[in-house]
Amino acid sequence: MNIAVIGTGLIGTSVALALRERGAVVWLADADPEAVRLAAHLGAGEPLPGDASGVTADVAVLAVPPAAVAATLAAAQARGPGGLARCYTDVASVKQLPVAQARERGCDMTSYVPGHPLAGREKHGPAAARADLFLGRTWALCPVPETSPQAIETVTALVRDCGAVPLRTDAAAHDHWVALVSHAPHLVAAAMAARLEAASPQALDLAGQGLRDVTRIAAGDTALWTQILAANAEPVAEVLAAVAADLAEAAGMLTDGDPKSVAILLDHGQAGVARIPGKHGGEPREFTGVQVVIRDQPGELARLFDAAGAAGVNIEDVRIEHSPGLPVGVAELSVRPAEAGTLLDALEAGGWPVRR
Amino acid sequence: MNIAVIGTGLIGTSVALALRERGAVVWLADADPEAVRLAAHLGAGEPLPGDASGVTADVAVLAVPPAAVAATLAAAQARGPGGLARCYTDVASVKQLPVAQARERGCDMTSYVPGHPLAGREKHGPAAARADLFLGRTWALCPVPETSPQAIETVTALVRDCGAVPLRTDAAAHDHWVALVSHAPHLVAAAMAARLEAASPQALDLAGQGLRDVTRIAAGDTALWTQILAANAEPVAEVLAAVAADLAEAAGMLTDGDPKSVAILLDHGQAGVARIPGKHGGEPREFTGVQVVIRDQPGELARLFDAAGAAGVNIEDVRIEHSPGLPVGVAELSVRPAEAGTLLDALEAGGWPVRR
Repeated sequence: MNIAVIGTGLIGTSVALALRERGAVVWLADADPEAVRLAAHLGAGEPLPGDASGVTADVAVLAVPPAAVAATLAAAQARGPGGLARCYTDVASVKQLPVAQARERGCDMTSYVPGHPLAGREKHGPAAARADLFLGRTWALCPVPETSPQAIETVTALVRDCGAVPLRTDAAAHDHWVALVSHAPHLVAAAMAARLEAASPQALDLAGQGLRDVTRIAAGDTALWTQILAANAEPVAEVLAAVAADLAEAAGMLTDGDPKSVAILLDHGQAGVARIPGKHGGEPREFTGVQVVIRDQPGELARLFDAAGAAGVNIEDVRIEHSPGLPVGVAELSVRPAEAGTLLDALEAGGWPVRR
Repeated sequence: MNIAVIGTGLIGTSVALALRERGAVVWLADADPEAVRLAAHLGAGEPLPGDASGVTADVAVLAVPPAAVAATLAAAQARGPGGLARCYTDVASVKQLPVAQARERGCDMTSYVPGHPLAGREKHGPAAARADLFLGRTWALCPVPETSPQAIETVTALVRDCGAVPLRTDAAAHDHWVALVSHAPHLVAAAMAARLEAASPQALDLAGQGLRDVTRIAAGDTALWTQILAANAEPVAEVLAAVAADLAEAAGMLTDGDPKSVAILLDHGQAGVARIPGKHGGEPREFTGVQVVIRDQPGELARLFDAAGAAGVNIEDVRIEHSPGLPVGVAELSVRPAEAGTLLDALEAGGWPVRR
């Protein structure tokens, strides 16, 4: 594949790196020439010639902020005799706004497949890019009625080449869903983090991993997020109002010495977090954890995996809980539930201390 | 040192593992004998004899829920001729409640050093314990006026032996600070997670790492957290009310089409998160990640670990990023920096695609 990436920030450069691993030819462009140079230096591709001479990409990936997508699409489609690419996709976190603006500008909608990879980091720019950023992540594709089947097919292949799982939907449903799972959580994290601005240094010395996790995404780019939130205002406001009401009620309950009612909110939270699919999104993880005690020495994990392999069991993931310096640790092996019994039997027969 | 750990859950077992690494003799007790057996099997120590005959520990660590601390302290101090230990500490997330209850019960306060390690996980129980749980973490110590200097000194040494950084303060200040950095964030995470309880499966398919981070701690134990929140109600309610007000205002701004004002909240959030000190407070983990592409089939990880073992490299941790259905994944192996080169060479020589 021959790919043009317009916008070599975190997402654009990560797409480029992922596709380069698959052997694609990648052309890079960005309003900031320094960003292009850095991305090229990372192995993401070659700078797109200013006149785009001789370049007709299979896909142009427009990795620019939401409000810049339509203008970037129009400029790319107007480039050269047949446009910069045969089809186009974007990566913006909202989909109705760029679609509406592209229509207003009279863009060719047949070659445009609006997209949104559900992946990101709190760091920005090409230096934060990773080829594996999209591995196993959901990547929403929201074609409009005019979008050609061929464009959809090409962009879907690109998404799979990035290791992501394509999810077909429409722009309105997408925006409603991400209000709940992405945009509102961002403001919730910001509102909690804002409380820390005037905190005493001693209080911050007591910060643990929980606070860091809850507030991590609040480090995101304000200008970009303001754009995203403004473009998805109503659905986001609805979620925020509900969260605010629950928190105000919880504050009241605590003040009134009624902690049992707070327990109800905690239970709802526990039920909610349990509904989030496994890390790899899209396809709900149907894996069971098998815990086994291992010695902390070279070759021990190999023996363990040999035993699993000999039993014909595929280990989907492994998490080692191990204490540096201690002679043993616990390996938690994720396997398909149907295979858990086989694995436990095989390990036990091999003398491994397992936890049933 | 000779240590008794009463309560072999996540925190108690982690303390035991950390002190065992330092060569301490550790005695384990828990209301659940199964928890003691598992902790002992992990190398956390030996079960405390039922009559405690012959055991006088230097310190007894009371790793029980906040409301159980005072009763556990009273029982331990009443044990044998001179009590179970020469001094006592607890690990509860609130400090005023156990101190007040210990006084009410007439406990000996000279040997009691109320404590709180700022470390935890969303998983529970001894199997989730790690000797390095406290590495570089702050561990609050809140002695009362009667606490003897010797008890403070002994418990401070224990905290340092766990790799943590002791922070001396008093119970009231502690509770006020953790309301902001731990207890209120827990309810904020729960309130956001509660919105997911009735979410459509498609919306949840779009969940990314941000949502997982914001809501992770909401998976915590409801009964324990209700106890904690009830014991620190006023300071928590104050923070929650402020967060609720900010979120309600943001919802209104978005509905009114005034996104610029939302940008102000985002900026405050960014400023707040920037004030959180680094994860390990200065003692970073000294591991390097080595990435290698693996095929998704039985025996593949065994081959990988065989190769590492043959090179004499000990893999400290492994994280597999793998996409269901895709033929390959990426394994990130954590090794000591000095061994990363050896491992890369060995893997490359064995035909593994590594990422340098």
